Amino acid sequence: MIIIMKRNAAEESLKQVSSYVTGKGLEVHISHGKELTIVGVVGNKDLINPDHLTSMKDVERIVPVTESYKLANKKFHPEPTTIQVGNTVIGPDNLTIMAGPCAVESKGQLLSIAHAVRDAGATFLRGGAYKPRTSPYSFQGLETEGLQYMQEAAKETGLATICEVVSLEAIEAAAKYVDMIQIGARNMQNFMLLKEAGRSGMPVLLKRGLCATVEEWLNAAEYIIAEGNPKVVLCERGIRTFETATRNTLDLSVVPVLKTRTHLPIIIDPSHATGSYKYVPSMAKAAVACGADGLMIEVHDNPVCALSDGPQSLNFNKFATLTKELRPFSGLVGREF
Amino acid sequence: MIIIMKRNAAEESLKQVSSYVTGKGLEVHISHGKELTIVGVVGNKDLINPDHLTSMKDVERIVPVTESYKLANKKFHPEPTTIQVGNTVIGPDNLTIMAGPCAVESKGQLLSIAHAVRDAGATFLRGGAYKPRTSPYSFQGLETEGLQYMQEAAKETGLATICEVVSLEAIEAAAKYVDMIQIGARNMQNFMLLKEAGRSGMPVLLKRGLCATVEEWLNAAEYIIAEGNPKVVLCERGIRTFETATRNTLDLSVVPVLKTRTHLPIIIDPSHATGSYKYVPSMAKAAVACGADGLMIEVHDNPVCALSDGPQSLNFNKFATLTKELRPFSGLVGREF
Amino acid sequence: MIIIMKRNAAEESLKQVSSYVTGKGLEVHISHGKELTIVGVVGNKDLINPDHLTSMKDVERIVPVTESYKLANKKFHPEPTTIQVGNTVIGPDNLTIMAGPCAVESKGQLLSIAHAVRDAGATFLRGGAYKPRTSPYSFQGLETEGLQYMQEAAKETGLATICEVVSLEAIEAAAKYVDMIQIGARNMQNFMLLKEAGRSGMPVLLKRGLCATVEEWLNAAEYIIAEGNPKVVLCERGIRTFETATRNTLDLSVVPVLKTRTHLPIIIDPSHATGSYKYVPSMAKAAVACGADGLMIEVHDNPVCALSDGPQSLNFNKFATLTKELRPFSGLVGREF
Amino acid sequence: MIIIMKRNAAEESLKQVSSYVTGKGLEVHISHGKELTIVGVVGNKDLINPDHLTSMKDVERIVPVTESYKLANKKFHPEPTTIQVGNTVIGPDNLTIMAGPCAVESKGQLLSIAHAVRDAGATFLRGGAYKPRTSPYSFQGLETEGLQYMQEAAKETGLATICEVVSLEAIEAAAKYVDMIQIGARNMQNFMLLKEAGRSGMPVLLKRGLCATVEEWLNAAEYIIAEGNPKVVLCERGIRTFETATRNTLDLSVVPVLKTRTHLPIIIDPSHATGSYKYVPSMAKAAVACGADGLMIEVHDNPVCALSDGPQSLNFNKFATLTKELRPFSGLVGREF
Repeated sequence: MIIIMKRNAAEESLKQVSSYVTGKGLEVHISHGKELTIVGVVGNKDLINPDHLTSMKDVERIVPVTESYKLANKKFHPEPTTIQVGNTVIGPDNLTIMAGPCAVESKGQLLSIAHAVRDAGATFLRGGAYKPRTSPYSFQGLETEGLQYMQEAAKETGLATICEVVSLEAIEAAAKYVDMIQIGARNMQNFMLLKEAGRSGMPVLLKRGLCATVEEWLNAAEYIIAEGNPKVVLCERGIRTFETATRNTLDLSVVPVLKTRTHLPIIIDPSHATGSYKYVPSMAKAAVACGADGLMIEVHDNPVCALSDGPQSLNFNKFATLTKELRPFSGLVGREF
Repeated sequence: MIIIMKRNAAEESLKQVSSYVTGKGLEVHISHGKELTIVGVVGNKDLINPDHLTSMKDVERIVPVTESYKLANKKFHPEPTTIQVGNTVIGPDNLTIMAGPCAVESKGQLLSIAHAVRDAGATFLRGGAYKPRTSPYSFQGLETEGLQYMQEAAKETGLATICEVVSLEAIEAAAKYVDMIQIGARNMQNFMLLKEAGRSGMPVLLKRGLCATVEEWLNAAEYIIAEGNPKVVLCERGIRTFETATRNTLDLSVVPVLKTRTHLPIIIDPSHATGSYKYVPSMAKAAVACGADGLMIEVHDNPVCALSDGPQSLNFNKFATLTKELRPFSGLVGREF
Repeated sequence: MIIIMKRNAAEESLKQVSSYVTGKGLEVHISHGKELTIVGVVGNKDLINPDHLTSMKDVERIVPVTESYKLANKKFHPEPTTIQVGNTVIGPDNLTIMAGPCAVESKGQLLSIAHAVRDAGATFLRGGAYKPRTSPYSFQGLETEGLQYMQEAAKETGLATICEVVSLEAIEAAAKYVDMIQIGARNMQNFMLLKEAGRSGMPVLLKRGLCATVEEWLNAAEYIIAEGNPKVVLCERGIRTFETATRNTLDLSVVPVLKTRTHLPIIIDPSHATGSYKYVPSMAKAAVACGADGLMIEVHDNPVCALSDGPQSLNFNKFATLTKELRPFSGLVGREF
Repeated sequence: MIIIMKRNAAEESLKQVSSYVTGKGLEVHISHGKELTIVGVVGNKDLINPDHLTSMKDVERIVPVTESYKLANKKFHPEPTTIQVGNTVIGPDNLTIMAGPCAVESKGQLLSIAHAVRDAGATFLRGGAYKPRTSPYSFQGLETEGLQYMQEAAKETGLATICEVVSLEAIEAAAKYVDMIQIGARNMQNFMLLKEAGRSGMPVLLKRGLCATVEEWLNAAEYIIAEGNPKVVLCERGIRTFETATRNTLDLSVVPVLKTRTHLPIIIDPSHATGSYKYVPSMAKAAVACGADGLMIEVHDNPVCALSDGPQSLNFNKFATLTKELRPFSGLVGREF
């Protein structure tokens, strides 16, 4: 941590800052410049509240020099993490394809989709049983019934299953029926839910919030891991910007950025990011090319009649074509698929 | 709802769209243009899933023409709402000042602050007992103990009290000790929490999410009201933009925008929006001048030592000066204070 | 400038950095921490290219500690600047009201508007003769003819005049006919135009770019002043964010931010920022309340028929009502109007 | 164009709107709903000013249904455009690689870089002779001298050359020495410069503004084409968002979006977008995978000493490795390289 003092800071102000820091058991290194005085702080910065320093007289600003997340940090865990889920793994050696409907609508629908996506190469079935919707008047999901259909689909197809959770009750129910839980973008900083997900011990897919920085996202992952659960996978699904040509703006550059900062796997969801099935195949290929560990793609037997997010879903043919086209890209980046 | 068909849309595509709409019991009005065909839909649009239409052949896009929120909508409730909380009211006739520390730290601290803010003109004491923090290693609040101190402070000073809640348990605890609950920016689309807040029947202050549109914010309010609880107050606290000179960008233009769309009161929080006590007084005056129903301002007995958000807190002197300066502005906009 | 070295940076890397800095004639102050080594740089930082340092081995990042603008910087010019334009001044002691049509359309129209805005209290007539329009097929302005009408209006009413310029030719023409030139948001980083505006010696209103930071905006002002022309006034007209309820998001918090960073006056344009005449009066009052030095407001004799930006223009009655309502706000902040 | 009237719009208001539209020679189709009345407008919308309509009584809003750009529009020009520049082409059949330094610094440097990038597979040499810099005190380019070096490098290597222009004078100079001109992000809506670029008849690379929508970008292209110059290539170089982990946010989804809207080629610049050489290779591969027509990449003989943008430049080895790795990706998308 570096403390930048104001121009012409009084000597007493510098003393106040120094004694605060040394009083907490850390060391200070002071550089007197012609214009500015800078105080370098050495030691365990968790013992210091940066807000206290910012409020002190003649302090211009505080510059943090280490990240606040530790367990998610690549610096202390340089090897990429591989996470076992059901019969499959997510990690650096293979390309994980999660596919399925936005919302589970009926048993027949789900089984039909499960077979289709497995036959095309997916290893995960996704399907929402609890739907966070902008309007209270929109379809909110089949809840436990939906989870039971997910379990049946897993039995029939051997696919691993993943489902979004929105509450402690949903986590408890999901633990009985599916292999992995998802924290959605709108709940990325619902810290109670993150802690519960941590305590559940289940593999967790953590979607990036619509306006979350990489730093905040990794701190959200830290909440889960700090509860003793290291099985966290990150998922980029588009951020909110001024551009309206796509629903959100898919921030693919987080793939190489995350590879330098964290050991956790990263999955890309081009369906929610773009909001249009037309843009999904090209963005899926781009994601694989830049090093993503997997994809989450919406597939529906009849996108025209989907109860949620139809316009962004691929039908069976389009999904099979896409996975076929993805295989050589997967080969180029050295991933099994 | 208007359906815009693609250039040279096939006659069958138009028939498919028309029969879907009329099959749901609504009417269609078709305009054939040289370049485009447009289908106006008349009737109860809740019976139609716009995603189905978007997925149909030759449909270019759907243009919604009515808002999805109803109970929060000014169109159906033209008079501004006044909400009674404790001994005070929030509404068009007075200027509500909520003040207090970001986090409740101790009983002595809270009582001292409560007296100071009441003497300066505040009618509400704010104080966090459950703190959603970016890092799991930051101070997370005193929880129930903090709520009890809030109750004592209310008894001593007569102030109404407000506290953020982050879970069902927190709502239940808050209901015993304070007068109003707050849903924070990070939970604005935590729909489970919104429903619980609705069921609690308590007055709710709903902060705007960091990247929530006005439309999404009013739909979040709708979640609460739809559970039978009309006592919702909105609070703007800055949105996330590219600018870093202030912590967030205070979007004051939502005040006149909301006044045309909803009957719910609107409170401005310049402390969290700007992140610096230096900018709070000018933004507070601006908020009053443009018609806000109140302010939420962080006040601390010793900002240098605050456990959370010290740099944005006013000390007692600065807060007393501010309220004194605000009175004539309040008079100019015809509000009691 | 502070240089943060990577964890476990090699001793040679530190030497390379040090000798680069000292080779340029500056001093280094090195702090060795357990995790990080930090190099404080003391001296004239203009002699160093931070990009060189960032590219060096084991350099984590560079933290600038002083601003790059000097002539616009309050640190070296603490008193607020007052600028004389025509018969009026822009500065800390009065409230400047610039009003007029978005585009000059005809002589009759302009004279009619000029009389109306002067009678209501404006001291400046604004009017566009060169219109930068998104589409090449939209009305682009009357050019020199428009400038001549501005001059006639000034003669009749005594108002100072201001007109946007988009090229060197436009600056030369404007110099003949009007009192002040405006650099529009889309040209805020058109550095050739900034230099020409500087060389012209005319008072310049510099609008903030749609996505310009405060730092970039003040550097743009620096381009003008560095050519020997200190007569620069800043104008906030809304930034681009995700919110679509208003055309742009008026960032009023720049008023107190700028007051701490620069001595240049700041004007607010609520018309372009909000895009709707309905929101102009409340935002105008907010701007005055938070300390702006003036307002720029679109006024049109017949907004329904304006060739450009009609929906955001006030008609004569609404403008007269607004200025009447603004007077007591102006009094509260100690400005003459 | 669709006109949405307000709830309970008066019959006279509807008449005013209708007669305005029909008075311009267009037709109206009126749909009376229970809640809303909608007016479809059929005919040449260029004859109508939407702002006039928005300002009329009881008009809620206007919904445009056709794009404002025509010559850049894929609807009227379905086949992708191929543009000849020097000895090479930019278009759907090959992968164009533009490479070189941010700024031309000396003849020796430029020739050395030119040979290296040609040997690695580039067909274009890029190099800035006029540098738009945020601060007036930063290096601003060698101007004509830099252009002459570009010409010499072209003669020696056979590479096509491209250089940014910032003024009419720069366009005239560039026309003598290089094959293609570039309009930078900060000048994307410098409409005077766009018109001059159009009149020059030279191939133009039009970079997207930092906060320009796709719609605005294509309208900027339209300015150039409307002057009779169809040789326009688009270049995405990152947009400004709240995320600071990369310099800007590379919006790769514009590739498939543009492919549905325009026939113009699209080039991706991962160097400026990410601001770090570490992220360039993965983003370059992603760009090729999703269908971009080419790449613009910064290459420097000694990035540590670059006068501008060193941290984002690849050295010769890294660039050669990248082009080698790109070849199989190029093959997968059916492009010659």
